[in-house]
Amino acid sequence: MKETVSEFALIQRYFAALTPPSSSVELGIGDDCALLRVPSDHSLAVSIDTQVEGVHFPIAAEAEQIGSRVACCALSDLAAMGATPLWATLALTLPNADAAWLEAFSRGLGTVLKRFNIALVGGDTTQGPLVITLQVHGAVAPTKALRRSGAKVGDIIYVTGFLGDGAAGLAFLQGQLPLDAAAAAYVSERFYAPEPQLHAGQAIADIASSAIDISDGLLADLTHITSASGVGAQINVEQLPLNPLWARSLTQEQAQHWALTGGDDYQLCFTLSPSQQAPIQAHAIGVITHEQKLVCLRDGQPVVLNQGGYEHFN
Amino acid sequence: MKETVSEFALIQRYFAALTPPSSSVELGIGDDCALLRVPSDHSLAVSIDTQVEGVHFPIAAEAEQIGSRVACCALSDLAAMGATPLWATLALTLPNADAAWLEAFSRGLGTVLKRFNIALVGGDTTQGPLVITLQVHGAVAPTKALRRSGAKVGDIIYVTGFLGDGAAGLAFLQGQLPLDAAAAAYVSERFYAPEPQLHAGQAIADIASSAIDISDGLLADLTHITSASGVGAQINVEQLPLNPLWARSLTQEQAQHWALTGGDDYQLCFTLSPSQQAPIQAHAIGVITHEQKLVCLRDGQPVVLNQGGYEHFN
Repeated sequence: MKETVSEFALIQRYFAALTPPSSSVELGIGDDCALLRVPSDHSLAVSIDTQVEGVHFPIAAEAEQIGSRVACCALSDLAAMGATPLWATLALTLPNADAAWLEAFSRGLGTVLKRFNIALVGGDTTQGPLVITLQVHGAVAPTKALRRSGAKVGDIIYVTGFLGDGAAGLAFLQGQLPLDAAAAAYVSERFYAPEPQLHAGQAIADIASSAIDISDGLLADLTHITSASGVGAQINVEQLPLNPLWARSLTQEQAQHWALTGGDDYQLCFTLSPSQQAPIQAHAIGVITHEQKLVCLRDGQPVVLNQGGYEHFN
Repeated sequence: MKETVSEFALIQRYFAALTPPSSSVELGIGDDCALLRVPSDHSLAVSIDTQVEGVHFPIAAEAEQIGSRVACCALSDLAAMGATPLWATLALTLPNADAAWLEAFSRGLGTVLKRFNIALVGGDTTQGPLVITLQVHGAVAPTKALRRSGAKVGDIIYVTGFLGDGAAGLAFLQGQLPLDAAAAAYVSERFYAPEPQLHAGQAIADIASSAIDISDGLLADLTHITSASGVGAQINVEQLPLNPLWARSLTQEQAQHWALTGGDDYQLCFTLSPSQQAPIQAHAIGVITHEQKLVCLRDGQPVVLNQGGYEHFN
């Protein structure tokens, strides 16, 4: 079935510039496939990630913000494996080939890709509802790749930075959290350009026993680690790092709830033997336990949260 | 922003079975990334391909047909590079997690992947309008990879099989081409399960000077070869291979028009030095010329087609 090929062919102009010369790219955009060279003695790490208008970002989002967010979120999966990013491919479905939208989207996407030295090597642009899929590709030494499955009883649980920022950002963007200008700017930036923790992932790749990126919320994602590792976990909620910029607008319990169950943080959660020191700035928030369940403690007492999510993991 | 995670997590059950054990897959579905091993001394070939309901297949299409079509069309790009397929990743956006639909879709997808020994190594399932993106990954020796850019003046232009099948299939499915039962079955199968010409691509990888798969129509795709190679082409329309099953329902001119401009054929078009013999069954349909334009001849006389497409390429 035919699309308006000529119109959509024009789109290539916006993306061709995102393929800088690279020794690992034998052939980029413009043939039936890209031809790529994985560094010798490395595994290829790949992750594919879709964002849908109105589901993963508000309909009011600007094109540049969408481009940035798509890149940051996808790269977070490479960070969680300790991989070095190399290439991206883009499947862009959009209602029409609006030049201004495309220019802004490719600028947002390109800024992130350029910062991490990633070449856009292929893509497909189709007409339809706004749905954006990005696949990211990286390299990692097989023995260093971070998995979800290696956590051991007694390991300390760390996160790389503030939790709850994603939930606060979404609440603010949806008009449900009044914030002052500084806090508003911070949470918006964290929602549309969550920093992929690539350097952190690479720094801990040698020593962490497990890792995951926090996209669905700390409890949900930590459960992926505990399930894959056959262990449990205990979280001390007062140790959860919260950014006071937005957290002071809520009760402490509400803020902790967002830190535990809110999605879209894109920090790494990782586990480390207690004999190891974290080689990066990170926050210890709990410990891996033998009993295969997740327990949250406040001042040493188990807590039950009121809304969504938590009960599933208890 | 949160989806109905628990509902969509169930989907994994339909796709986990599509990852058979393979020495090239160090880690499949179920972590932040898949970890893959590209055969040594080979380049990685990747292509990403999106199909949108109502754009790339009729809204009435059955789930198994959609799954099959998505896989076949994506693999066609690997065929066009002469690559050996290895892995696929799936980004599936769908309105709701309908178990029957998912079971049928994964059966259609899985049948094709299994036939070509391809592991589904990762995916993302999101809620939204039905949009399906498949990325395929293969391996090819760098010196053997087929490109669009190597066609030389005097090279013979070949296609691997019948042209116009895709256009006939679409016309039939849209109720615009009455066919008898045998013809209807044939064109429907060709539309929903177009055979990716993987063996043909690998067989010609050593000797063809250029290749492309015919997805947008012969003239459009041949123009990609001539543009990339800085040459022109001359097609003898009476040499276009047409399947009489459907072609006999049309005038010869109409059938040839579909063969020239219809999309969705997924045959390979390739060029070969006149001193070489095609190592596979293929149809010679013309010759590469010096003047950088595309000319169609009927009985030695230039022809101009009436509708769409052709004028762009003249």
